[in-house]
Amino acid sequence: MADIIDGKAFAASLRASIAAEVAALSFQPGLAVVLVGDDPASKVYVANKARQTVEVGMRSFEHRLPAETTQATLLALVQSLNADAAVHGILVQLPLPRHLDADAIIAAISPAKDVDGLTVTNAGLLANGLPGLVPCTPLGCILLLHDRLGGMTGLNAVVIGRSNLVGKPIAQLLLQQNCTVTIAHSKTRDLPTLCRGADILIAAVGRPEMIKGDWIKPGATVIDVGINRVPAAAPGKTKLVGDVAFAEAAGVAGIITPVPGGVGPMTIACLLRNTLTAAKRIESRATLVSEV
Amino acid sequence: MADIIDGKAFAASLRASIAAEVAALSFQPGLAVVLVGDDPASKVYVANKARQTVEVGMRSFEHRLPAETTQATLLALVQSLNADAAVHGILVQLPLPRHLDADAIIAAISPAKDVDGLTVTNAGLLANGLPGLVPCTPLGCILLLHDRLGGMTGLNAVVIGRSNLVGKPIAQLLLQQNCTVTIAHSKTRDLPTLCRGADILIAAVGRPEMIKGDWIKPGATVIDVGINRVPAAAPGKTKLVGDVAFAEAAGVAGIITPVPGGVGPMTIACLLRNTLTAAKRIESRATLVSEV
Repeated sequence: MADIIDGKAFAASLRASIAAEVAALSFQPGLAVVLVGDDPASKVYVANKARQTVEVGMRSFEHRLPAETTQATLLALVQSLNADAAVHGILVQLPLPRHLDADAIIAAISPAKDVDGLTVTNAGLLANGLPGLVPCTPLGCILLLHDRLGGMTGLNAVVIGRSNLVGKPIAQLLLQQNCTVTIAHSKTRDLPTLCRGADILIAAVGRPEMIKGDWIKPGATVIDVGINRVPAAAPGKTKLVGDVAFAEAAGVAGIITPVPGGVGPMTIACLLRNTLTAAKRIESRATLVSEV
Repeated sequence: MADIIDGKAFAASLRASIAAEVAALSFQPGLAVVLVGDDPASKVYVANKARQTVEVGMRSFEHRLPAETTQATLLALVQSLNADAAVHGILVQLPLPRHLDADAIIAAISPAKDVDGLTVTNAGLLANGLPGLVPCTPLGCILLLHDRLGGMTGLNAVVIGRSNLVGKPIAQLLLQQNCTVTIAHSKTRDLPTLCRGADILIAAVGRPEMIKGDWIKPGATVIDVGINRVPAAAPGKTKLVGDVAFAEAAGVAGIITPVPGGVGPMTIACLLRNTLTAAKRIESRATLVSEV
């Protein structure tokens, strides 16, 4: 039976270490979260982010705008946050209402404050192995792997999924860890055989329990990024499952993340970590300039 | 015996199609090449680039600066080229003399004119699957593959080498072509077995004849990016070889590029193609603005 990673506990210890570092700073990092409209799930996420931001000792700036907000108004808000010295991280909660151009909004965020790692500049810095801000979920996966495996040099990593937000950044991070990295996707032939060669298997597809137990190499480390809502046994009820058939896979894998309670809780913790990283860089640059 | 790709002929036909397109434009694209110092190999490259630029009907602007040029002087030149409406592409010949900070110089090039595809912005656009300017050698590899294979959906591609200039961009381009892509490197375990699974094998390592014939899947397509100078049979003479042991590999592969005469000639042709792409984008934007 695999060792099951407790993502909730790991995220809590990460937040505790962030809080300790924040307490030792000579300034207070600030995270601005922008929510447009009334999507219930987004409201819950934003409230959780704000609460955890305050809990680690940072300032939280919440901006709630009506669903009918114009592109110009939202752009102006982003620009004012870019210019605000108290704000070190800016997160625009996605998805945005359909009449808004999300790409243009994201492009307006200063790369130095882009704590979701969504801008072209941060994707380019990651691709070129330079210090930037990495998307939160991929960062969470790597922190979990690093905690359990230590060095990953020479391990075969298979990433299933090639989204800009998850699959591609995870592949870049695994490459930086000296893994041999394969990126698989919906067009991949014979995915089961490919998966059976993976020492590290990352599932980021969004298809409930697609990856079966007999696709997994005995002893492999399995990180399940999928969060899929499916019907539960009780009539009318639903439950969350990952992209991996957990019960089967846990019998074969060496280490595995559950869903829920695996990668999920890491995402907000990594957002706070990115905010701390951004804040330290911005403030050290400001100090350098003022000392000249 | 494999079908041997004639990169020289393919590059010539690419240049001819570029020349035809340039002749039909209402403006003349311009490429500026900056050479600092007296490196003999760089001088030859720059002269070839200038000649081929003129041959396809574009304007060539050559800037030759002494080896002792300062960072400030070179930055000022790049900025003046960024602002020059007659210049659509800017190439700073590498390597630069050691006292210059090449990263800072490259970062100063306008991404819209970065025809070598070296800026962080163009790396990010490629990573996110957005239109940008792609490094020339990777672009040349994909054009050769596309010409021979047509669609590549579902093929297993193995890229050996993970440089920012070649390996990583090629991997991104193969992923866009719907290949299942594996990136291998010096830390990869059992490279021969990995290579034997490749329908498309890209060698970009810089180690002479490292990839042996029995590493190659029968019928595979082999693209050899390596250009290594080694001692020849005749005393005191040298010759160029690739990263692939060509004679052995050509007996197994279905399609293969030779060295020299394979990928090499494609690089300048792709530089011209990038200049044309950049020029059309810059001019169409200028037209849009003037029509507003």
